[in-house]
Amino acid sequence: MPEFLKLHSVNEAKQIFFENLGIAHPNSEIVASIRAVGRVLAEPIVSKEYLPAFSRSAMDGYAVRAVDTFGASESLPAHLKIIGELPMGTTPILTINSGEAALIHTGGMLAEGADAVVMLEQSLITAQGDLEVFKTVSQGENVIFKGEDVEPGDEVIPAGKLIRPAEVGGLFALGYTQVKVAKKPLIAVLSSGDEVISAEQTPEPGQVRDINSEALAVFIEQNGGEFKLYPIIPDNLEQMERSMRQAYGEADAVVVTAGSSASSRDMSADVIRQMGKPGVLIHGINIRPGKPTILAVCDGKPVIGLPGNPISALVIAQFFVKPMLKWMLGQTSDSPIPFVKAILSVNVASSAGREEWIPVKLVQKQDHVEAEPIFFKSNLIFQLASADGLMKISADETGKMAHSEVDVMIL
Amino acid sequence: MPEFLKLHSVNEAKQIFFENLGIAHPNSEIVASIRAVGRVLAEPIVSKEYLPAFSRSAMDGYAVRAVDTFGASESLPAHLKIIGELPMGTTPILTINSGEAALIHTGGMLAEGADAVVMLEQSLITAQGDLEVFKTVSQGENVIFKGEDVEPGDEVIPAGKLIRPAEVGGLFALGYTQVKVAKKPLIAVLSSGDEVISAEQTPEPGQVRDINSEALAVFIEQNGGEFKLYPIIPDNLEQMERSMRQAYGEADAVVVTAGSSASSRDMSADVIRQMGKPGVLIHGINIRPGKPTILAVCDGKPVIGLPGNPISALVIAQFFVKPMLKWMLGQTSDSPIPFVKAILSVNVASSAGREEWIPVKLVQKQDHVEAEPIFFKSNLIFQLASADGLMKISADETGKMAHSEVDVMIL
Repeated sequence: MPEFLKLHSVNEAKQIFFENLGIAHPNSEIVASIRAVGRVLAEPIVSKEYLPAFSRSAMDGYAVRAVDTFGASESLPAHLKIIGELPMGTTPILTINSGEAALIHTGGMLAEGADAVVMLEQSLITAQGDLEVFKTVSQGENVIFKGEDVEPGDEVIPAGKLIRPAEVGGLFALGYTQVKVAKKPLIAVLSSGDEVISAEQTPEPGQVRDINSEALAVFIEQNGGEFKLYPIIPDNLEQMERSMRQAYGEADAVVVTAGSSASSRDMSADVIRQMGKPGVLIHGINIRPGKPTILAVCDGKPVIGLPGNPISALVIAQFFVKPMLKWMLGQTSDSPIPFVKAILSVNVASSAGREEWIPVKLVQKQDHVEAEPIFFKSNLIFQLASADGLMKISADETGKMAHSEVDVMIL
Repeated sequence: MPEFLKLHSVNEAKQIFFENLGIAHPNSEIVASIRAVGRVLAEPIVSKEYLPAFSRSAMDGYAVRAVDTFGASESLPAHLKIIGELPMGTTPILTINSGEAALIHTGGMLAEGADAVVMLEQSLITAQGDLEVFKTVSQGENVIFKGEDVEPGDEVIPAGKLIRPAEVGGLFALGYTQVKVAKKPLIAVLSSGDEVISAEQTPEPGQVRDINSEALAVFIEQNGGEFKLYPIIPDNLEQMERSMRQAYGEADAVVVTAGSSASSRDMSADVIRQMGKPGVLIHGINIRPGKPTILAVCDGKPVIGLPGNPISALVIAQFFVKPMLKWMLGQTSDSPIPFVKAILSVNVASSAGREEWIPVKLVQKQDHVEAEPIFFKSNLIFQLASADGLMKISADETGKMAHSEVDVMIL
């Protein structure tokens, strides 16, 4: 495995992987907008309507002609005649003529003749029932004009956008009760290793239950994909080839975790290398945990080989499986990763020249959040379960000092 | 509405609300562990087993008696006899006696007699087929001992924990293919307003489609609840009372958004006030957007009245509906909110004395992320849809300067 000799940085590895994947062509399907949250828009949403569909008041107040308030102030209020109240939900029958005003509620449709709204707080009703206005309002003040949010033909949500509650609101605002989204890609999830048995079985001495398939499966589901679990593959080249080819044929991408032995790890690389062109692109990433990761593209389909250690597998899933799913879904909207600022509780050493991600527990203190590193040994899954997030030590650092501020990525 | 005169801070409002809610008693149900991600654990997970179930090698190397390597160094290696290879997945039949070593793979079960593992890299096979060890290993070195992760009786995941992929892995590691989780609480979602129609209908002049119910419904679903949508309530006290009482009777909590007019807003407060004890606790929060929020507890059930403006409703949902759902689910694990550090593109003014959350778009620049504020007018839902997150201006600030660093909460 000559490619193992050159360890790529996380960013290099990502770049090479996605360059070789090229442009995604996700399949699409129509779903009810109320079920579309978390899905990715397959085509842009273009409005057929004005939003708002009519000029509305942004305030509780009085609909007026702005010109009638010119020069009005606390000491010299403008006097207007109140001619009625504008209704909610229907076209007002009143017309506002010069010197007139009508009560209007937030969201109410402006009456003909009116071009501004005086806020309730800036007016007073006199003993005679007239309106005193204490402030000059300009044309359009406190009014949301027809089409101010959206006009017909506007692209309001681009294709590739992840649909959040705000986008669902936007779809309903335009009457789109259905929406075309990217179909969830099917990811084959395989584990290998002579020592690995399925979680339903009772382990004999020397055997361990499969953790990786299940943890990765739910990770894939959380990030917009569907999973299919395959039977555990023993450390046998022929059986691995058969299982991998079946998975490759049935799914849109393959994620395989190797058994813990070196032969098991080598075998998955050998099998992936034969599955299609260009094959294995990256074997070995300059990151801890997760160094023995394999990134491959086999005749257009992504194939990822993850380390057998479940902690490594889940860390690497964050950095490679998640972006792979975004790519497969055609998701172009991508906010930067948010971090929690925390104060490190102890000194943490790290080898320079390698990016390291340390699991940490976050503890809320009086006036700050403390990050307590978890110094895990491989395979201790419950240590990862006790972690709130991961703290990064860059390749150019040799560690972090106690009491220094660190950024923690929430798991 | 005398309670409106006193605006509470966000934290005060939360404290009063949750004090009055007391202790949650979520119902529970059994689900398959593979479907449990995003759910909240209803009872602690206690191990019945040792993990690992046997002492395993953490490295590829040679199983040895540590004492046989004492004093070994590059210049003075220890010489051991290789007596074979330890198998994966089963109990070794070999015993390691004094002066002996056996090849072992990562994850392999230690043979009887061995108490440490020499890494491959720290050894060499001589021409005679013997092993040279270049480093002293101490007892237990490169070994994960039986029970080092978990022992029988250990509480490995506490009740109230949100189940993530790592927890799913942990459940499977112990053979728990099913798990008891909090039942999803049913939240009744209602909208009111004479001007509001359902999204399926075509608006007449003056009417607007309901956005809030749908956006809140999917927000609730995203945060662990189930929703039930009710028909839109006209601005009529009797009808609102009837709808609210029905919703209150059928659901575990009620979320209602008022129409935009003042009378509609007042009406929902009046109705909530009559629904149970202690009733309305908070009417008015010192936050923008979202000031007219109502927080109530009616005979033990939470009732939240949100502003009719969909942007306000979604912002307030983050700060109150989400914690309410956590409370209802009995979720005790709660990581701090992560933020994206960004550089503000322009000056932003704010009134001191009020917490403000400004929607921003995040733009990746060469070496930093830029936050571009979106100066929204009420009800422009597509402006919120274009926002990546919210930037906070604290009550004690009067704004933020262009080029200053700001923390953005991702939506």
